Amino acid sequence: MMLVTLASHSSLQILHGAKREGFKTSIVVNKEREGFYKRFGFIDDFQAYKNEDEAIELINRNPDSVFIPHGSLIEYMGMDRVSKIKTPIFGNRKLFPWESNQSKKMKLLELSNIKTPIKFENPEDVDRIVIVKLPGAKGGRGYFIARSKQEVKEGIKRVLDQGLVKNIDELIIQEYVIGIPMYFQFFYSPILKRVEMTGIDIRYETNVDGLRRLPLDVRVEPTFVVAGNIPAVARESILPKAYDYAENFIKTTKEMVPPGIIGPFCLESVVTENLDIITFEFSGRIVAGTNLYVDGSPYSWLYWDEPMSVGRRIAREIKLATQDGKLDEVTT
Amino acid sequence: MMLVTLASHSSLQILHGAKREGFKTSIVVNKEREGFYKRFGFIDDFQAYKNEDEAIELINRNPDSVFIPHGSLIEYMGMDRVSKIKTPIFGNRKLFPWESNQSKKMKLLELSNIKTPIKFENPEDVDRIVIVKLPGAKGGRGYFIARSKQEVKEGIKRVLDQGLVKNIDELIIQEYVIGIPMYFQFFYSPILKRVEMTGIDIRYETNVDGLRRLPLDVRVEPTFVVAGNIPAVARESILPKAYDYAENFIKTTKEMVPPGIIGPFCLESVVTENLDIITFEFSGRIVAGTNLYVDGSPYSWLYWDEPMSVGRRIAREIKLATQDGKLDEVTT
Amino acid sequence: MMLVTLASHSSLQILHGAKREGFKTSIVVNKEREGFYKRFGFIDDFQAYKNEDEAIELINRNPDSVFIPHGSLIEYMGMDRVSKIKTPIFGNRKLFPWESNQSKKMKLLELSNIKTPIKFENPEDVDRIVIVKLPGAKGGRGYFIARSKQEVKEGIKRVLDQGLVKNIDELIIQEYVIGIPMYFQFFYSPILKRVEMTGIDIRYETNVDGLRRLPLDVRVEPTFVVAGNIPAVARESILPKAYDYAENFIKTTKEMVPPGIIGPFCLESVVTENLDIITFEFSGRIVAGTNLYVDGSPYSWLYWDEPMSVGRRIAREIKLATQDGKLDEVTT
Repeated sequence: MMLVTLASHSSLQILHGAKREGFKTSIVVNKEREGFYKRFGFIDDFQAYKNEDEAIELINRNPDSVFIPHGSLIEYMGMDRVSKIKTPIFGNRKLFPWESNQSKKMKLLELSNIKTPIKFENPEDVDRIVIVKLPGAKGGRGYFIARSKQEVKEGIKRVLDQGLVKNIDELIIQEYVIGIPMYFQFFYSPILKRVEMTGIDIRYETNVDGLRRLPLDVRVEPTFVVAGNIPAVARESILPKAYDYAENFIKTTKEMVPPGIIGPFCLESVVTENLDIITFEFSGRIVAGTNLYVDGSPYSWLYWDEPMSVGRRIAREIKLATQDGKLDEVTT
Repeated sequence: MMLVTLASHSSLQILHGAKREGFKTSIVVNKEREGFYKRFGFIDDFQAYKNEDEAIELINRNPDSVFIPHGSLIEYMGMDRVSKIKTPIFGNRKLFPWESNQSKKMKLLELSNIKTPIKFENPEDVDRIVIVKLPGAKGGRGYFIARSKQEVKEGIKRVLDQGLVKNIDELIIQEYVIGIPMYFQFFYSPILKRVEMTGIDIRYETNVDGLRRLPLDVRVEPTFVVAGNIPAVARESILPKAYDYAENFIKTTKEMVPPGIIGPFCLESVVTENLDIITFEFSGRIVAGTNLYVDGSPYSWLYWDEPMSVGRRIAREIKLATQDGKLDEVTT
Repeated sequence: MMLVTLASHSSLQILHGAKREGFKTSIVVNKEREGFYKRFGFIDDFQAYKNEDEAIELINRNPDSVFIPHGSLIEYMGMDRVSKIKTPIFGNRKLFPWESNQSKKMKLLELSNIKTPIKFENPEDVDRIVIVKLPGAKGGRGYFIARSKQEVKEGIKRVLDQGLVKNIDELIIQEYVIGIPMYFQFFYSPILKRVEMTGIDIRYETNVDGLRRLPLDVRVEPTFVVAGNIPAVARESILPKAYDYAENFIKTTKEMVPPGIIGPFCLESVVTENLDIITFEFSGRIVAGTNLYVDGSPYSWLYWDEPMSVGRRIAREIKLATQDGKLDEVTT
């Protein structure tokens, strides 16, 4: 069987892992980037596209393959095109519309008894530090922090003027939780019926993570564009809570969006000084922070006696499912 | 033989390593967290407790095992209870009281010719930036930075009022060394008669490590609660000094607290712009920063051609000692 | 055959890798540090020197070996002495003078169509935030940030007064690019005729990377002395540009400094909020950031199904070249 993914995001990891599990690998890739991906020996097949419609067509030419979605799929292709993919998708495609809608996203977290930041429906209600977020996985572009309702309004005007959003309703105004970011990566296996922590990462964001290097009297407006990731581990004593969150989330998605989450997901969180975990967002697919762990993470080694990236873990799940005649339990 | 540890801190790493070395593994675990630890296949035996006294009783039911202490043991159990453990303990249990006392701790460093921050006995003597620390391994809770004797006094009043300490004598007022934190992890092997560097880490502390992401005019009081760790390596040219410190420390503990340090320890340091290493604290047991290196660290690979976490290294030392009939040289 | 290197920088990694590839290993080491290096079992041979001239003599006693240069070679020995090395050197020794001259260095980048910061020839021209750099690999000592021509002049006076430089012409005044540092490590293989990304790191600099932990009203002048490195990965979507830079750089060095770059090099860059890569410097040899990846990096695993440090990669290249009778293609 062949595993196919869209170039970018975590496609190298996904196909590297697929090859390690013995699958044939294929990449659907923008013609301009084909040369780059040809550098890597573990990609067997190249399907180059010139525009997004062609990309979907190419994906659909592989009905006997499994297509592996990642965190950039919808950003690159748009929800409409993604909904036209006929090839079996690893994971639960019914989650995509939930992921694209910030309100529905937060609702899934809240229903899971996961602590989330306070949300402000109206700029007028803002009474603390907030972060204003733009829809979709744009890598944090345009996000801004505001300290008052006045600053929120100014910022909204700015992103509207810049054309970064069309409608104020697309924005989400969240309490800015004081603490440190930690992205808890999980994998839910319907075949092994368990959740595994696959790693923890910190996003490395430009320019905000560079500003601290400037003298204090040099003022530069921070931006929050994710350009990379840094590895981390958490205190062991906060892991039980993170796992509880993960289990609750799996249960909620089974109820609200059956068959529920399948495979990788990430609870994007802040850990406060009381060691509370506040989750401000989730990803329902593989996140780019897993690219740190191509040869396994400090957590994957607790489950597997072999190097297990999330890309490989996906391929392993498909292999196990196929062996058991349960491929339909991990694809939609 | 069975290796036993107390749940939390680095217990997953310890038992994972013990299993890799072929030991039977057992965890003494708070009943409430038992479910969490049952997720991991490398734990053979669960001894669940409801209160701390019961925990000690359970440990003592395994007289033929070796108990592995870690950095949270005394914080969780208290020194009195720990002193009642009859099961052989890996390492030197006579170091525990030294570790619990900040003055004795600093004395061991000073006797080792390790550079340490200036200590102020009296808030009145403070003439530079200082950090005021609270006793015990509370993960940095309540620590504060002060720039003047006035601020020191205000801070002390605050932690007394909050009940974080009972007595001003428990506090330690240290020069705040300007530089970057580096935690040098070592392992002293009485069997191989050598010290190995097992890794370097940086603590990831909430909220202080998140504050840099805020705009400069948003003022939030920093807190220093360790919530995780980030990996790092040091310039090769500062390693000889770090090793000298480690050797001196081993020698000093042999003289002052025979049989001296056994197994893992950590020199918790700041590296200044002159590339001096100033050590502000040590841990005489495995530190949580080693959890980064479940599959080996950039330093462990220089000694071992196999993945060697500190947890596994402990188990290996016990195995080597047992084979040589020298178990009493690594346990107390 | 024997691989020889100079102690310090990345010599442990280099010789560890050489041993894994089956070479005999030798270190030329300052007498004072010999004891430190004797701790490691993978070093077969010790050539201890008392002064730099003797070091060069010792290197030259091994005409049938290959000498592996690293980022500290010229800083420790000086260009004159290095030019007297007669033992074959891995890599292109003609690049050394280019590397030692900031203007020639930047020219190689510019000729490669690599985006670089604006350079100011005259302090009078400064119209934005700049960083003023001192010549040679001094680990960032003396570097300073200035916000105006006035501050540039004051800073220059200070480093002249401190004797850190002798001549103002040795200084380089560069636009301070706002963004996050990322050091892209590459390896060009003349034998396999391909470039491999070997890793990405972030420098951990004292004291600047510690200052963010201080309360905002504590003002300390930042310094930029590299004391270590932290691992990172980049967004997959910026990798094609990084590889294009690398390919261009290989091509330019072939034309300008034949036979061009051989083996490891590093494009020391800032990633801006537009995800542009601005390269402010390069290293033409192994950088210390590769010490993070003694057992392989998230990128090396995409090329090699075995743990491949840059040290080992160098040894592998020499082995492959020797097998093909092409040792002269990788040494000069």
